[in-house]
Amino acid sequence: MEFERLLKQVEFIHEIDKVKYIFRKTRLFNSPRHENDAEHSWHLAIMALLLAEHANEPVDVLKVVKMLLIHDVVEIDAGDIFLYDSVVAHTNTEAEQKAAERIFGLLPTEQANEYIAIWQEFEDSETPEAKFARAMDRLEPLLQNVSNGGGTWKEFSVDYGKVVEKKSVIKNGSETLWAFAKQLIEESVEKGILHKKT
Amino acid sequence: MEFERLLKQVEFIHEIDKVKYIFRKTRLFNSPRHENDAEHSWHLAIMALLLAEHANEPVDVLKVVKMLLIHDVVEIDAGDIFLYDSVVAHTNTEAEQKAAERIFGLLPTEQANEYIAIWQEFEDSETPEAKFARAMDRLEPLLQNVSNGGGTWKEFSVDYGKVVEKKSVIKNGSETLWAFAKQLIEESVEKGILHKKT
Repeated sequence: MEFERLLKQVEFIHEIDKVKYIFRKTRLFNSPRHENDAEHSWHLAIMALLLAEHANEPVDVLKVVKMLLIHDVVEIDAGDIFLYDSVVAHTNTEAEQKAAERIFGLLPTEQANEYIAIWQEFEDSETPEAKFARAMDRLEPLLQNVSNGGGTWKEFSVDYGKVVEKKSVIKNGSETLWAFAKQLIEESVEKGILHKKT
Repeated sequence: MEFERLLKQVEFIHEIDKVKYIFRKTRLFNSPRHENDAEHSWHLAIMALLLAEHANEPVDVLKVVKMLLIHDVVEIDAGDIFLYDSVVAHTNTEAEQKAAERIFGLLPTEQANEYIAIWQEFEDSETPEAKFARAMDRLEPLLQNVSNGGGTWKEFSVDYGKVVEKKSVIKNGSETLWAFAKQLIEESVEKGILHKKT
């Protein structure tokens, strides 16, 4: 059938609408409204397009964009886990693996395999593309917290040390962006929107 | 300065957060909530990645994705215009042109020029990439209306003839997707969620 592949693709397109219903802990740049995973993924993809020049190693930009657009699709089944959650492992849980297989599994087989592999590559954070994509994922909420007066740092009493620890992953993707991020973190302490543990 | 370019890029990244506040007439696939432009752009970009194989001509997928991710950024200044609005021209107004220059103009010059050109290419709908991107932009709300019982067709009394006229643009990007879309439109009439003018 001509439409056999297409119907599977449309089923996936339909299913991922649910990403728009998953709200993150972080809030928008200038609003108390929480950001949802679709908005977040859109923003990261554009950031990658614009900031790829700052990557430590040359990256396949299309692959980075694919990773970022689909990296949170697994949360349809597995839910969003807050970066600073100390109880639940942040990434690559069994629930996420199952979710990837079910959701990408709606696609025609070879596309399903391609996107499960891309999602896994992002989770493993070992290739230049995955490291750079991760840097985007850590940079956006930092920009948001700086922009909206402390955001999740204030709300969940996250201190300077924890922020530096979690955000230092940016360095693996881009030394330039990490130097910039560190400067923003120091400025946040000076502005009183991020606190050092006393 | 090392950060001179980066600061301009971050200013743009900050500015486009406003895309998340622009609500479209169309509603989500399974919800009465209106879709915002960021969610819409995210969905179209993923559709393009998955459906590029159905394009009439081979397309540069990265360029299509760039177009779709940024195509609604101009609405920050110019606002969203409903596809079936018969009074206001849908695309390429003077307001949109000015918006493109102001918003993309926040970027470093050569990136600003690149994205203004990509936005203009989308608006002109003449290249294979722009035609395919347009097809995505027309297909998504059709899938949404079919999924949520008629959506904007019912709400704004849009009839079969108008839908076929507006959606036929899909054909320029993909004959396969147009054949599929026509089938969905006919089925919508049979199901009573779209009406022929009597």
